[in-house]
Amino acid sequence: MMGSEQILHILYLIAIVAEAMTAALAAGRRNMDWVGVCLLGCVTALGGGSLRDVLLDHHPVSWVQHPSYLVVTGVAAFATIVIARYMHHLRRLFLFLDAVGLVLFTVIGCNVAIGLDMPLIVVIASGLITGCAGGVLRDVLCAEVPLLFRAELYATVSVATGLIYIAGLRLGFSHDLTTAVAMTVGLALRILALRFGWSMPKFVYTQSLH
Amino acid sequence: MMGSEQILHILYLIAIVAEAMTAALAAGRRNMDWVGVCLLGCVTALGGGSLRDVLLDHHPVSWVQHPSYLVVTGVAAFATIVIARYMHHLRRLFLFLDAVGLVLFTVIGCNVAIGLDMPLIVVIASGLITGCAGGVLRDVLCAEVPLLFRAELYATVSVATGLIYIAGLRLGFSHDLTTAVAMTVGLALRILALRFGWSMPKFVYTQSLH
Amino acid sequence: MMGSEQILHILYLIAIVAEAMTAALAAGRRNMDWVGVCLLGCVTALGGGSLRDVLLDHHPVSWVQHPSYLVVTGVAAFATIVIARYMHHLRRLFLFLDAVGLVLFTVIGCNVAIGLDMPLIVVIASGLITGCAGGVLRDVLCAEVPLLFRAELYATVSVATGLIYIAGLRLGFSHDLTTAVAMTVGLALRILALRFGWSMPKFVYTQSLH
Repeated sequence: MMGSEQILHILYLIAIVAEAMTAALAAGRRNMDWVGVCLLGCVTALGGGSLRDVLLDHHPVSWVQHPSYLVVTGVAAFATIVIARYMHHLRRLFLFLDAVGLVLFTVIGCNVAIGLDMPLIVVIASGLITGCAGGVLRDVLCAEVPLLFRAELYATVSVATGLIYIAGLRLGFSHDLTTAVAMTVGLALRILALRFGWSMPKFVYTQSLH
Repeated sequence: MMGSEQILHILYLIAIVAEAMTAALAAGRRNMDWVGVCLLGCVTALGGGSLRDVLLDHHPVSWVQHPSYLVVTGVAAFATIVIARYMHHLRRLFLFLDAVGLVLFTVIGCNVAIGLDMPLIVVIASGLITGCAGGVLRDVLCAEVPLLFRAELYATVSVATGLIYIAGLRLGFSHDLTTAVAMTVGLALRILALRFGWSMPKFVYTQSLH
Repeated sequence: MMGSEQILHILYLIAIVAEAMTAALAAGRRNMDWVGVCLLGCVTALGGGSLRDVLLDHHPVSWVQHPSYLVVTGVAAFATIVIARYMHHLRRLFLFLDAVGLVLFTVIGCNVAIGLDMPLIVVIASGLITGCAGGVLRDVLCAEVPLLFRAELYATVSVATGLIYIAGLRLGFSHDLTTAVAMTVGLALRILALRFGWSMPKFVYTQSLH
C-alpha cells in the first residue's frame, strides 16, 4: 500500500505536469516557438516554489534538488504542442488538475515555512507564493496583467487552504488528516468558484494621482 | 523623547503604507480585484527591500522578520478601495509621502549594504534597488514599462541621497545628522523636480538592430 | 603571453558591453530617459548571472564581487545614446558580439554549476539562465513578450554549447580546448541561424481553456 508521502509525491508530479501543459497553451496563444513553450512550462510549474525558496533562503530549490522536474515539465509542455487539438475535450480535467495543483502547492509551501519555524503570516504567504507565483510569472512573460490579480477565487482559495492546514496542525490533528481536509476544502471552494463564476469584487479607479 | 531609531521606524511604517496605497490606485486603474489590490500593495511596498536582500544574501528578508509589514501594507491597500474617492484631495500629501519613502528606503538600503561591508558602488546600488525596485515590480505586474525608466528624477534622487549619506559617514559626521541631511536634500530635490517638472532627457531611437 | 583566463575575462568585458549597448537601443526604441537606458543596460548585461547566482545560492553575485561591472555596463549603455546614430553601420559587429556573449555566458554559467557539483541537467539550466535570462529581463522591462520565447535559435544555441562543454570535460579533454570548441560550435550555430533565418517552429493555439 502507498503511504501518504507517496500519494502526495504522485499528486505533485501530476500537478506540475498539468501546470506545464496549461502554460504551454498560453504560450501557443502567444505564438511562441517550441523552445519558448518548454521554457514557459518549466517556469510556470516550478517558478512558484523557486521564488518561495529564494525568499525564505531554503536551498537547494526544488529543481536543483530534483532536476528530473525540469525534464518532466519541459516534456509535458512539449507534448502539449502535439495533443493541443484534443485538449479542449479535456478542459474540465485540466481545470480540476490545476485546482489540485493550487491546493497541493499551497500545502507544500506552508509545510516548507513550518519546517523553517516561520511565524503564521509567513507560513500563509509561503503557501500563497508556492501556489500562485508560477502563474504570475507565466502572465508576466506573456506581457499580460496577471490573472491572479484580476479574476476568480484563486489567491483566496490558497489562503483558505493554508489557514485550514495550519489550524488543523495547531489543534493537534494528524498531518495526513489535516492535509486531506485542507486540500479537500480548498479544492471544493475552487471548483464551486469555477462552477458558479464566483469572483472577488473589482476595484475600478479612473483618476490619475500624478 | 523618541530616539532617532524610533522616528525612522515610524517614518518607515508611514512610507510603506503610502507606497501600498499608491500601488492600490494603480491596481484600481487596471480594474484588479480586491485580492489583486492587496497583493500589489504588498509587493510594491516590500518588493524593493526583498530584492535587495535576496541579491545581497541578507536573510531573513524584512517581511519574514517582521510579518506585520505584510498585514500593514495589505490592509493599507485594502483601505484604499474605500477611501480612493477622497484621495485626489490628498494628492500632494501622497506625492510627498512617496518621496519620503524613496529617500528613506534609499538610506535603509545603503545602511544594509554598509552593514555587510560592501564596496561603495554596491552601497549605492543597494539604496537604489531598495528605493526604486518596488515601483518597477508594480509596473511590471501592471504590464507597463516601468515609470522609473521613463520619467522624472526618481532614480537620480535615490543615487544623490545615497551619495550624500555615504559621504557624510565617511567624513565622520554622526549617523543621525548624516541621515537627516541626506534625506532632506533628497526630499528637496524630489519635490523641486515634481514642482518644476524636471526630468532626464529621453533617448529616442527608431531603428531596429535586427 | 595571455593565459586563457585573461582571454576569457577580456571576452567577458566585451560581451557585457555589447549586451548593455544593445539593451540601450531597446530602451531608446521605448523612449526611456537616460537613467532608464543605463539601468536597462546594467540589468540586461548582469541580470542573467545574478538570477543564476540567486537560484543556485552562489554568493556573492558577480556585480557584488566586481562592482566595476556596474560601472562598465552603465557607461556602455550611456555611451550608446551618443553613438547610436552610427551603430546601424556596426549592426553585424553587434550581432556577432551578442552571439559571443551568449556562448561565453553559457560556458560561465555551466562552470559555476559544475563548481557547485550540480547534476548535469542543472548545469545545462545554469548555462541557459546565464546566457539568456538577461535578455528576458530586458524584454519584460520593455513590457514585451521575451524574444527568447518567440524567435530564432537562441536558447537552442545555449543548450548545444552547454552540452558540448560538459561532454568535452567528461571525456577528459582539457578545459581550454573544451571551452574553445564549445564556444566555436555554439557561435557558428548562432551565426548560421542568423544568416539563414533558421528558427524553431511556432506553436499556434487559438482556443481558450477557460
